[in-house]
Amino acid sequence: MTGPKDDAVNAGHQHVGDFHVYDTTMRDGAQQEGLNLSVQDKLHIARHLDDLGVGYIEGGWPGSNPKDTEFFQLAAKELDLRHATLAAFGATRRPHVAAADDTLLAALRDSGASVVTLVAKSHDRHVELALRTTLDENLAMVRDSVTHLREAGQRVFVDLEHFFDGYRANRDYALEVVRTAAEAGAEVAVLCDTNGGMLPHWVAEIVADVMGTGARLGIHAHNDTGCAVANSMAAVQAGVTHLQGCINGYGERTGNADLVTCVANLELKLGMSLLPEGHLADATRISHAISEITNYPPHARQPYTGVSAFAHKAGLHASAIRVDADLYQHIDPSLVGNDMRLLVSEMAGRATIELKGKELGYDLASDPELLARVTDRVKQMEQAGYTFEAADASFELLLAEEVDGARTSFFDVESWRVLAESSRGAAALSEATVKLRAGGVRLAVIGEGNGPVNALDHALRQAIEQVYPDVARFHLTDFRVRILDQGHGTDAVTRVLIETTDGKSVWVTVGVGANIIEASWEALVDAVTYGLRLHEVRPRIDD
Amino acid sequence: MTGPKDDAVNAGHQHVGDFHVYDTTMRDGAQQEGLNLSVQDKLHIARHLDDLGVGYIEGGWPGSNPKDTEFFQLAAKELDLRHATLAAFGATRRPHVAAADDTLLAALRDSGASVVTLVAKSHDRHVELALRTTLDENLAMVRDSVTHLREAGQRVFVDLEHFFDGYRANRDYALEVVRTAAEAGAEVAVLCDTNGGMLPHWVAEIVADVMGTGARLGIHAHNDTGCAVANSMAAVQAGVTHLQGCINGYGERTGNADLVTCVANLELKLGMSLLPEGHLADATRISHAISEITNYPPHARQPYTGVSAFAHKAGLHASAIRVDADLYQHIDPSLVGNDMRLLVSEMAGRATIELKGKELGYDLASDPELLARVTDRVKQMEQAGYTFEAADASFELLLAEEVDGARTSFFDVESWRVLAESSRGAAALSEATVKLRAGGVRLAVIGEGNGPVNALDHALRQAIEQVYPDVARFHLTDFRVRILDQGHGTDAVTRVLIETTDGKSVWVTVGVGANIIEASWEALVDAVTYGLRLHEVRPRIDD
Repeated sequence: MTGPKDDAVNAGHQHVGDFHVYDTTMRDGAQQEGLNLSVQDKLHIARHLDDLGVGYIEGGWPGSNPKDTEFFQLAAKELDLRHATLAAFGATRRPHVAAADDTLLAALRDSGASVVTLVAKSHDRHVELALRTTLDENLAMVRDSVTHLREAGQRVFVDLEHFFDGYRANRDYALEVVRTAAEAGAEVAVLCDTNGGMLPHWVAEIVADVMGTGARLGIHAHNDTGCAVANSMAAVQAGVTHLQGCINGYGERTGNADLVTCVANLELKLGMSLLPEGHLADATRISHAISEITNYPPHARQPYTGVSAFAHKAGLHASAIRVDADLYQHIDPSLVGNDMRLLVSEMAGRATIELKGKELGYDLASDPELLARVTDRVKQMEQAGYTFEAADASFELLLAEEVDGARTSFFDVESWRVLAESSRGAAALSEATVKLRAGGVRLAVIGEGNGPVNALDHALRQAIEQVYPDVARFHLTDFRVRILDQGHGTDAVTRVLIETTDGKSVWVTVGVGANIIEASWEALVDAVTYGLRLHEVRPRIDD
Repeated sequence: MTGPKDDAVNAGHQHVGDFHVYDTTMRDGAQQEGLNLSVQDKLHIARHLDDLGVGYIEGGWPGSNPKDTEFFQLAAKELDLRHATLAAFGATRRPHVAAADDTLLAALRDSGASVVTLVAKSHDRHVELALRTTLDENLAMVRDSVTHLREAGQRVFVDLEHFFDGYRANRDYALEVVRTAAEAGAEVAVLCDTNGGMLPHWVAEIVADVMGTGARLGIHAHNDTGCAVANSMAAVQAGVTHLQGCINGYGERTGNADLVTCVANLELKLGMSLLPEGHLADATRISHAISEITNYPPHARQPYTGVSAFAHKAGLHASAIRVDADLYQHIDPSLVGNDMRLLVSEMAGRATIELKGKELGYDLASDPELLARVTDRVKQMEQAGYTFEAADASFELLLAEEVDGARTSFFDVESWRVLAESSRGAAALSEATVKLRAGGVRLAVIGEGNGPVNALDHALRQAIEQVYPDVARFHLTDFRVRILDQGHGTDAVTRVLIETTDGKSVWVTVGVGANIIEASWEALVDAVTYGLRLHEVRPRIDD
């Protein structure tokens, strides 16, 4: 199943302990069509990447735009990374300007990032055409910029844009740029296949040649030939010890190398150990959690982490699979936190649910019947469009319901109604009516808002606040909508994720329905129910 | 851009003229989760594959189920293939049964297919566990089955299931199966990486060894390590002359090797010529046409044929792209029937917008004032939450408005209203009222739907259909919602992207608003406006 022994031994010779796993999801990945990340999105993604255990997280380009600048400021205050080092991305100084006088370089120096990744040109035509300067001045730009940041105490990696094409166009010059970067103190020269046109045997040959410079090398591959992963592997096998990629293979055009697939191949197939022990087993969860943030539907066929990656239309093989599943899968899916699926059932397996329960303080392992019941229910609900990857609070409510035998209820809903309207092009007005019973009385309340869900949230909270004052402290902090079952337009099922805080804790709930209002209502009800349980409020419906 | 000369020369030694491009979309591709093909679907797909110019189309397993049997009957009558040969798939005879007495083998013999692809076991453990027979009997099954079909005048290919894993477990036996198949008259022994766990250097080593048998070899790769394409390429470079794959990489788990990517790499990068001259330029159209049939949304990042495959967030590079586009793309996209697309994105500069305008047929370069006006407007709108990256139709309406001095309007909206309500936990009902003026009359229409946007869409289209019958042909095909400015809960700004089709063209529009209803309304209005312009319908508000 895994590689022959001697591969693992060879890998051991590659100073694995110092190998860089470098994520560029938030910078190069964000170049993907339709992908836009807010500062809060980036903070969330950085935490997930740190959980995965990558060594470096490229956070963006401070100084190039206000959003990235703000991200680095907030990251310094709010991000408490356990495994990863945050890297700032930016360019070498402009032509014919002293490094010390370059404002963009100053922003990198002052970003607070201990590692700066500088992009530099190594393709002669790009130097002339895009930079509009001479080949010598480009070398000086690399030398001065690296030196300047090194003198400021920063570690520097250099991304050599269009390196492979440049090597083919002018090998001597491309190698000269590598040497210049290394001599100026760059820790790694990263060979970028920026246009993505390489094939593995070309990468292997070129990397082997560049290794002759003595510089430490990295690889940055794109998937335009469908070979981003294989090209990355070929580079590592040829001696590269710094690997760049993106979660879920995000990136411009056909995307960057999928970081998880590369790392899983290197760890599970070639015996290298790149992430902290056991962290690869979080890969599936993290891949899906990040796709909730990017709001890009996860690709079912994605290697290792895709929902279909270990799904079998078992048919004839079902009994053989039961006897020896390893004959039908290339790895044990639990190694990447995924599950084998035999029938058409959704992602969650018992192992995942047991683990999740444990996370929340429930020992499901000791009660196999309960575990089976919860697993079945989760599978059913996931089939209907729910996701519990991100919605821990809704999962905990479900779990508590199965443990207690009934769901804790703080109020009885009679009805709700929302109206949104616009006249003569004026801004739309929304109004919601909620009727429910709590604390022994019937409450009928109207809420207004700038949108239907906002109005509904106001009405719900105004009503129950009268009986449960704690609710006044709850605030919605995030609201995400995903239309499932694409290809059916507005007939599709809607999933809503709502994030709520009481100022101390933050919790996420999920709702699914034929439409956004219905789905939001379910998530809103879960949100206040979870909050009231958390505050240990006693349910009072009929007192 | 393409490979070095000697690669092309080496490829020339591989008897390219006789190379088999073998599509298994309708058999192994149909194993994909959620993919179900009717007999008519298969006939349509076969015609598209023939247009692409593949050499062999595996149609299914006649005799194993009524649908596949019917397909082969209809194919014999209705399919008039110009390039491809239809292949029937099936298994070797059962253990301890004479080939002539095996009913499934008889169905293959009588299918009318001139080529039969027999699947055989080559992994010792699978012979014992799944076939429950001896290693010798398995060899006899291969020998007898091939011989029987050869005597009936059919050409036979043999798919060696689990070959690579089998080779590792018991090399001698795996090679013995290859020799047995070849000696019995099989034209090709196809080495299958059934579980998909291989890496390119392993494939290269193993294929090189198996070449020693003297048998003609094929490759059948799955994408479980993200290396299906690279593994296929490695096999071809090691001497294989028969390549199996699926359109759009369909297939069980992570899918099969994407046939178009493999062929494009071999033709455009290694100088082989596999499809009839010029046919590769139909690849994008055919890939998308087949995804219409499978009803699987095309993967935007798919190499070569994906809608994003040649899409650039140009930004700083836009001016350089204008001078020499080839510096920024690994091949000329027209070689595979795709197009370079510039995305109008955050930080969009004049150069990007000028190029984008050119794509849409507007010469903005000659009118710098107009260009500046459009650029400013795009920047302002992007600041407010709009994105034109994906919403080409809304961008074109904006452009046309600036060029014409006013937006084309097909109707005057008086008001709209949406109501959603739920009582006693029942499913929510939605109802929309739209009042507008078109064709000289005032129209007030009610629409119902399972959600508020759905209801609004119905009401809007029912109203204007009365004046513009073309609207009846427009259908929503996708609907995406994104809440922007996160961290503000339901107070956030909502962005909606709507994809509409008239059956021939597809267009995407964008709307932004304080809430989802308002944003959707804007995108819906843009969608019908764009569609009516596209159909060259004359605006009639007051006639």
